Amino acid sequence: MQQWKVRSKHFEYDVVIGRGAWRALRRFPLGNYSSLFVLTEAGLWKRWGRCFQRETGLGRLQPVFVPAGEGSKTLPMVELLASQLLKSGADRQSLLLLFGGGVIGDLGGFLASTYMRGIDCVQVPTTVVAQVDSAVGGKTAVNTRTMKNLIGTFHPARLVVADPLVLASLSPRAFRSGMYEVVKHAILVGGSFFRKLEQTGDWLRTGDLDALEPILARAVAVKVDVVNRDEREEQLRHVLNLGHTFGHALEEATHYRRFLHGEAVGWGLLAVARLGRCLNVLSTAEEERIARLVRKVGPLPPIGDLDSARIADLLPQDKKSVRGQIHWVIPERVGKVRIVTGVPLSTAAAAFRDLQRSSSQSHSSA
Amino acid sequence: MQQWKVRSKHFEYDVVIGRGAWRALRRFPLGNYSSLFVLTEAGLWKRWGRCFQRETGLGRLQPVFVPAGEGSKTLPMVELLASQLLKSGADRQSLLLLFGGGVIGDLGGFLASTYMRGIDCVQVPTTVVAQVDSAVGGKTAVNTRTMKNLIGTFHPARLVVADPLVLASLSPRAFRSGMYEVVKHAILVGGSFFRKLEQTGDWLRTGDLDALEPILARAVAVKVDVVNRDEREEQLRHVLNLGHTFGHALEEATHYRRFLHGEAVGWGLLAVARLGRCLNVLSTAEEERIARLVRKVGPLPPIGDLDSARIADLLPQDKKSVRGQIHWVIPERVGKVRIVTGVPLSTAAAAFRDLQRSSSQSHSSA
Repeated sequence: MQQWKVRSKHFEYDVVIGRGAWRALRRFPLGNYSSLFVLTEAGLWKRWGRCFQRETGLGRLQPVFVPAGEGSKTLPMVELLASQLLKSGADRQSLLLLFGGGVIGDLGGFLASTYMRGIDCVQVPTTVVAQVDSAVGGKTAVNTRTMKNLIGTFHPARLVVADPLVLASLSPRAFRSGMYEVVKHAILVGGSFFRKLEQTGDWLRTGDLDALEPILARAVAVKVDVVNRDEREEQLRHVLNLGHTFGHALEEATHYRRFLHGEAVGWGLLAVARLGRCLNVLSTAEEERIARLVRKVGPLPPIGDLDSARIADLLPQDKKSVRGQIHWVIPERVGKVRIVTGVPLSTAAAAFRDLQRSSSQSHSSA
Repeated sequence: MQQWKVRSKHFEYDVVIGRGAWRALRRFPLGNYSSLFVLTEAGLWKRWGRCFQRETGLGRLQPVFVPAGEGSKTLPMVELLASQLLKSGADRQSLLLLFGGGVIGDLGGFLASTYMRGIDCVQVPTTVVAQVDSAVGGKTAVNTRTMKNLIGTFHPARLVVADPLVLASLSPRAFRSGMYEVVKHAILVGGSFFRKLEQTGDWLRTGDLDALEPILARAVAVKVDVVNRDEREEQLRHVLNLGHTFGHALEEATHYRRFLHGEAVGWGLLAVARLGRCLNVLSTAEEERIARLVRKVGPLPPIGDLDSARIADLLPQDKKSVRGQIHWVIPERVGKVRIVTGVPLSTAAAAFRDLQRSSSQSHSSA
């Protein structure tokens, strides 16, 4: 079990990851709160709720259920949940525990940040992406019909407790999807973390907690470090967007149906590495090293049929764009990225086409 | 023209009030922003937009219109407006000017605080309540079906510019409604401000800017002072809730149809003064002094038909309640209030019934 401190603008909070992490709630000042609510999905809570309550000693939790899936990350759902909280007696001194993956964390964080102008929350992430990335740093969001995560806030949790035990609930595909985000963090820091992922294969199996735990801990440490240096994403935090500019466009182009988020990021990592090579920012050898690790995670849904011009059109819609400029995060080598602006969309489209070609070749030759 | 500095957690901002206040935008660092949008109501903008653009020198404003009225303060409207902003090219570096009354300020502030996780806004309040109260301090909100202002954030404007010239657009009733909030501030600070209001009648006419301007400036100074001492309302800011506990219940009981917000606060001030007397917190003489000033603003919609038990039932729904406890703000005398908990609802109901009785008597004997 490992623990880090995250400095937010208003307060510090702990991120605890590893077997037994939930027990950290026993040291949390729960007595400061008038009532405790847990936002979760019914199936997930049915499987893990009793275990969570036993480890934390929390008996008086009131569960509030959200239907599983990205479709719940909407403002109408926020209104519904706020009304349920109100009816159940939640006031400004209530605490909201967010027990789930990215949807619960994003939606619940937004709910907590806006219910009666803000109540405290604790993140209890239950997916790989949530544990190593989204539960840390305070970003919350809901989708609109026009854009994913268009509406959101910064509202850090008062505590993040991530126990990899719950990852056993994930389908192999959902587990791998999260691993692309782990790989993203490894590309950002490079060094021994990247080498460790290159050398071991055990982390690909959800069941092997002994192998997995230190990898997740290392991955979340990358996030903690970046957030501690730049909570509001004005500069440094932007590097976490590696692979996401192409990734978002792929998700948009396929109406969020073909790819899990991490899978789109996986393709996004491959595409931006290819773009880096096209721009002479990244060497062929380093691109191959990155691509090998991404590919090692497992098979990705196909991209061969997608129109590269359409993908390019969707790129500037990224929220990180300012004055229509895309701020690309491009690897220079494993362990180092560079922010690049002014890349012609046609160059990005060409890099994507090139990736499509080489992917279908490697596929047909496999 | 007067100017105050408000210290927020992250930055300081100016509140400028008086004739010519809009010109303060000429000194504002507009060059930091990628694009400028103004959220407003079509009728209001038609009447004042050109004047505003002339005084501020802002030509490149993109207006975004909101239907007038409290009915616009909803999450579906936030989603619609966010999509319009996105379509018009608003990004994280855009600035949103909020040109209107409480609805525009609350709704637009919430929109600004959540659009792409927060963009800057400038408040240009155009009603009395907005100028002396709601535009300062950063509270934003939207209503849900279950509670007014249930969902909101703290998102202070980067600048507040209030020119009383626009108050000429207000109906006499809307103008008076705002004046109850001015009276509330006068009760809080007492002294020369309260005496000035007791002695003069000119401030009741919207047209008399010379008399009105110093009164509005004095009223907003009360708000600035309280916010500077307690931005997050944890303690001191709560005193601004004077008259609002009864006021909200009156609005709820009449489904927000009978009273303008300020009128409900007017009755709320009378009711809480009566409650103060019932609790032996306030003397009869001081209650009469407060009541005289409230009554001086003008006629209020009737309350004689309302069921005091129903009003009492609605009191604990106030957002300021914690663990079901109402934190009453009760005047001890003009210029001093006290927070009181543990008041039986039956006592509050009795005070309200007593007010109903004496109001109908004074009405029938008039």
